[in-house]
Amino acid sequence: MEMWFSELHTSNVKISMRIEKQLFSGVSDCQRIDVLVSDEFGKILALDGEILFSEKDEFIYDEMVTHVPMSVHPNVKKVLIIGGGDGGVATALTQYKTIEQIDVVEPDEMFVEVCKEHFPELACGLEDERVNVYIQDALRFLRSKSDEYDLIINDATDPFGYTEGLFTKEFYGNCYKALKEDGIMVYQHGSPFYEEDKEECVKMHRKAYKAFPISRVYQAHIPTCPSGYWLFGFASKKYHPINNFKPAEWKKLGIKTRYYTTNLHKGAFMLPKYVEDMLEEEERD
Amino acid sequence: MEMWFSELHTSNVKISMRIEKQLFSGVSDCQRIDVLVSDEFGKILALDGEILFSEKDEFIYDEMVTHVPMSVHPNVKKVLIIGGGDGGVATALTQYKTIEQIDVVEPDEMFVEVCKEHFPELACGLEDERVNVYIQDALRFLRSKSDEYDLIINDATDPFGYTEGLFTKEFYGNCYKALKEDGIMVYQHGSPFYEEDKEECVKMHRKAYKAFPISRVYQAHIPTCPSGYWLFGFASKKYHPINNFKPAEWKKLGIKTRYYTTNLHKGAFMLPKYVEDMLEEEERD
Repeated sequence: MEMWFSELHTSNVKISMRIEKQLFSGVSDCQRIDVLVSDEFGKILALDGEILFSEKDEFIYDEMVTHVPMSVHPNVKKVLIIGGGDGGVATALTQYKTIEQIDVVEPDEMFVEVCKEHFPELACGLEDERVNVYIQDALRFLRSKSDEYDLIINDATDPFGYTEGLFTKEFYGNCYKALKEDGIMVYQHGSPFYEEDKEECVKMHRKAYKAFPISRVYQAHIPTCPSGYWLFGFASKKYHPINNFKPAEWKKLGIKTRYYTTNLHKGAFMLPKYVEDMLEEEERD
Repeated sequence: MEMWFSELHTSNVKISMRIEKQLFSGVSDCQRIDVLVSDEFGKILALDGEILFSEKDEFIYDEMVTHVPMSVHPNVKKVLIIGGGDGGVATALTQYKTIEQIDVVEPDEMFVEVCKEHFPELACGLEDERVNVYIQDALRFLRSKSDEYDLIINDATDPFGYTEGLFTKEFYGNCYKALKEDGIMVYQHGSPFYEEDKEECVKMHRKAYKAFPISRVYQAHIPTCPSGYWLFGFASKKYHPINNFKPAEWKKLGIKTRYYTTNLHKGAFMLPKYVEDMLEEEERD
């Protein structure tokens, strides 16, 4: 049998992968959730027909949102993960013994359950005693928080659909408020390559750039993302991702990685000219 | 009408793009050549059904094989481009006024003619008076050359098919011989992500690593390449790509780019852990 899953990256480009079988398909209050087994990427999880992660390349994403801020902020005790019901980011964070509390705010309970069943090695961190999972709307959760977190990781997937509220100016303001005076926020910045994605990508930079004194963008190569190229935002009240970077301290922790290195950390902030130009244009206004 | 061009990146993954029309299709002595107009990538050139370049992303490749060695070697006068009949690399090199001679050795005359007709902005450099195009087998061309070039750019496409001879140990040895005592060779290293590509990728490193005293690998994000992630080899007799890098001198030249910056130059050598591990394994034996 030939079975192919396809995702349109734009209306004119798509990636397709050969599928062995479908393990799960369901519709939650938020979205359609599918778990498929692919020949090339292992198990993949798709939300409303778009790949959220695959077994073969999810490590890149999880490592880049976790280790970049953790090697800059000198004293992270309390972390908020927005979205992240799959547990990948929480699991990566539990490697840091100095972290005391990790709050995961995920609106979709079915998503959490599906990930626990089909991706236990990702979701296992949710069982760590320092982790609290709140099945709740993140925007509402955030409104009551002030001066509380050292690090916020916005793991929310998309500026469209039910997570749209997590990409507004109000949202960035609430994150700023929820962070301590030296807090850092890391967020998904999208892909800058295709025209369709570019606009959202620059808009996002504008919001973070206006809300935080330090706002830098960094990159990773993630094959299942549109054009294989993904950006992250590093928005910070005090620490600069390069000037306050502490590679020697981080190395001492002995954390095992497959993508992140302290060398790559620096390189991740060295962006192509067309991306630099795009971001600088937003900074000028 | 719906017309899609698809390329298998592995037997289990493919990229597809919507096509407006086909401008050319022909079979030369070496290969099948197609020129298609795509909605997302502009005109694309495919060899034997695989994308060689597209108007939208070819600048990344051309800039990365040209400016990286040119900002390291202090005195490039004579360059050899192996393959490169499309003229993209030659055109990029003609921006350097100090270069006196550029030899392009391309076995496929039809390929050169098709590029001149359909991609004149790429091919125009071939008309520069410093450029000589030899329609010839590169391996034979190289055998008679000794201590002649400051820079060799191996633009050949693939370790399989008619260019297979350009990826042998003998070939690297001949390039070494053809280079002056401080010469640099840059070559396509392939994509390290998919298992199918990985083996060729590490083999290539082994050959260059044994033939040249300095052998480093650098990266770029090229959306139409397999997994969107492409590696290049920097093999050199004397100059190190970072230790002998001259950003200030290069900036003074005022060359306009869309991907390359002197900052990105450094970042391009900062590789993900899984790529570092893969290459180091080859270096140990």
